[in-house]
Amino acid sequence: MGSCSDIIVVIEFGSKVKKFGSKINRGGMARRSAKLVKFNEPFEFVTDDIPGSPPGGAVVKVHYTGLCHSDVDMSQGEKTNYSLPLILGHEVSGRVHSIDQLAVNSDIKVGDRVMVYAIRGCGVCSRCKVHKPTFCLNRVRKTIGFTEDGGFSDYLTVSDLSLLMLVPETVAMDTACLLPCSGLTSYNAVVSILPTVKEFVTDHGVPEDCAVLLVGAGGLGLWGVQIVREVLPDGIRIVCADRDPERLAEAKAMGCDEVVLWNVKEDEDNLIAATNQASGSVGGAVAAVDFVNTSETFSLIESVLIWGGIHVTVGVFGDTASLPLKSFTVHQHKVVGVLVGTQQQLRELLKLVENGKVKAPPITHHPLESVWEVLQDLRDGKVKGRAVIEVSKPSE
Amino acid sequence: MGSCSDIIVVIEFGSKVKKFGSKINRGGMARRSAKLVKFNEPFEFVTDDIPGSPPGGAVVKVHYTGLCHSDVDMSQGEKTNYSLPLILGHEVSGRVHSIDQLAVNSDIKVGDRVMVYAIRGCGVCSRCKVHKPTFCLNRVRKTIGFTEDGGFSDYLTVSDLSLLMLVPETVAMDTACLLPCSGLTSYNAVVSILPTVKEFVTDHGVPEDCAVLLVGAGGLGLWGVQIVREVLPDGIRIVCADRDPERLAEAKAMGCDEVVLWNVKEDEDNLIAATNQASGSVGGAVAAVDFVNTSETFSLIESVLIWGGIHVTVGVFGDTASLPLKSFTVHQHKVVGVLVGTQQQLRELLKLVENGKVKAPPITHHPLESVWEVLQDLRDGKVKGRAVIEVSKPSE
Repeated sequence: MGSCSDIIVVIEFGSKVKKFGSKINRGGMARRSAKLVKFNEPFEFVTDDIPGSPPGGAVVKVHYTGLCHSDVDMSQGEKTNYSLPLILGHEVSGRVHSIDQLAVNSDIKVGDRVMVYAIRGCGVCSRCKVHKPTFCLNRVRKTIGFTEDGGFSDYLTVSDLSLLMLVPETVAMDTACLLPCSGLTSYNAVVSILPTVKEFVTDHGVPEDCAVLLVGAGGLGLWGVQIVREVLPDGIRIVCADRDPERLAEAKAMGCDEVVLWNVKEDEDNLIAATNQASGSVGGAVAAVDFVNTSETFSLIESVLIWGGIHVTVGVFGDTASLPLKSFTVHQHKVVGVLVGTQQQLRELLKLVENGKVKAPPITHHPLESVWEVLQDLRDGKVKGRAVIEVSKPSE
Repeated sequence: MGSCSDIIVVIEFGSKVKKFGSKINRGGMARRSAKLVKFNEPFEFVTDDIPGSPPGGAVVKVHYTGLCHSDVDMSQGEKTNYSLPLILGHEVSGRVHSIDQLAVNSDIKVGDRVMVYAIRGCGVCSRCKVHKPTFCLNRVRKTIGFTEDGGFSDYLTVSDLSLLMLVPETVAMDTACLLPCSGLTSYNAVVSILPTVKEFVTDHGVPEDCAVLLVGAGGLGLWGVQIVREVLPDGIRIVCADRDPERLAEAKAMGCDEVVLWNVKEDEDNLIAATNQASGSVGGAVAAVDFVNTSETFSLIESVLIWGGIHVTVGVFGDTASLPLKSFTVHQHKVVGVLVGTQQQLRELLKLVENGKVKAPPITHHPLESVWEVLQDLRDGKVKGRAVIEVSKPSE
């Protein structure tokens, strides 16, 4: 999608931040994009015509696009098999710029403030029909910013109007862009552990040693802390683990009860002991959500999980973990892979945000011209909270 | 438990089948047992006094003790850290021989036909209190035949009367012995996949390509085929995989729809293609239960599972599997370790057996004297269905 055949000017930049030349911005009628042309090489900044709406779809004037760890991985060729050139960016909010005349049955109109749900499946199987495209039976996955052009561009082509969801006036647009990916993923992960957590609640309520462990206090983890408070039973103990003390301080400020520093140089047995102490239970944490999703965090979690506990993996570019089938089975663990979530879950999350129950992690704004450099910071663990590209101001 | 301090005679046997000398069976008042004294070496056959009931417990005159793969593993020292000497055997049925006078609140009386639930936890944590000892929060696990003497003996000491469950007259005692382990494990595994399977059922019922894969058509797999028919929605397709064509024929006779030979010499891609064809769905099997639980079967299952599908591991001595976190997460798989089940589940299974809905796999009877040799056959994959030691005839 987002045809690239009309490219007018291509300017190759090095790693330095450059601005688009004003001469190619023809009175606001051009689209400017940061395009991945070669893996591991800085985006090329291109300007072309604003596309028209595709059949049944729309074009969104992009205001904010969040930066996700998967954007880092996407830009590194060895982990992906996606076709280039490609405009990355899948956490998008903006205003509806145009709607195709064939697009029907929708309350969305030109000018509406919207966020973009990025995933489609085959559209015809039983799972797609009940709006669960991530489970498409035909294994079709079309994703904005992965398989088609995304939001590191000021105009985004959206192939199906149903992917757009209205953003209430009370929700800021830089918060809104984060909801369909990082917010929704956290929400889905927390919802996934709910049934298991409930099993550990007694007639006397939540035992004081009933702990949920969130691994990774980045953007997703900070959503996670708040969502746990809203979605899980009252009184649950929230423990955050991270390798960065500053991030742990943020998690604490966001409301988690205990933090534990997962210093990579520390002996594993010491990390396990420290985590169990933070969980406050001889049995271990009842549930864990791994927002880091590496073989190292996987193994650590398996070592600090209670018998019958649940372990959720989040993140689309993990390596290969070791799963000792003996202890896993004897301890009756569960491991569940979570990928984003459904539009219904997104509506539930939006309601929490609208009602002030959940707020976005601390957001930093960056211009489109610096997107490559910010991605490098994200890769290097230098981004606190969530970095968002201000592609165009909501007032534009 | 089952004190070994009163041993009168120890006769060391080689690998040949030997009988107990009649001179040491003092008018039926002695207990004869096959005891593991050294890992990887044939049991020693010992005779001692029949023990008295422990405080709060009972002694069972053992009729049948099933042979389980974990008995094979238990007898191999490198995989275990249990203390020897030990009498193995944890699938036990028999008659109540004696009850301690301190044992209260039970409908069990001397002479009753019973089966033995083998597992206890700490007894005081919130999970143990709701009769889920396999999830003991204090990580205490006491198991007959593992941590205390078991049923390869004609008298079994049971430390808590609540571990005994009545066997209705309509249920044969050689079937009954299998229920608390192999039957219950299969039942729990199938119940564990039920919620996920239900997600794939549409308003029009079960799609014809909605398949459940059972890996391993031994004792547990044959229970599994029947339990799937009773517990999962009507119309579900049952596919069995095994490396042995004869076992697959048994699974077919037991009512599975499709079989697929997982020939270990075959190329993995061919096995995957054959399994997908048997499942009849481009997306793969909706659920899989792995009764073999090796790293090889684990990987194969992950390759043939539908997006959002569930994968249950069964078996307490598996090796270490590789779990590719990327594909696992992106495909939103679930892996769940299942260990035996609860007494409530055992009652549900018993009801199915009593009503003729589920029957035991084909059973072969063997004398206690040949238990070591039959274990070797089980190790070598030569046992079809379930091998059971007839420790004493129910008429005795």
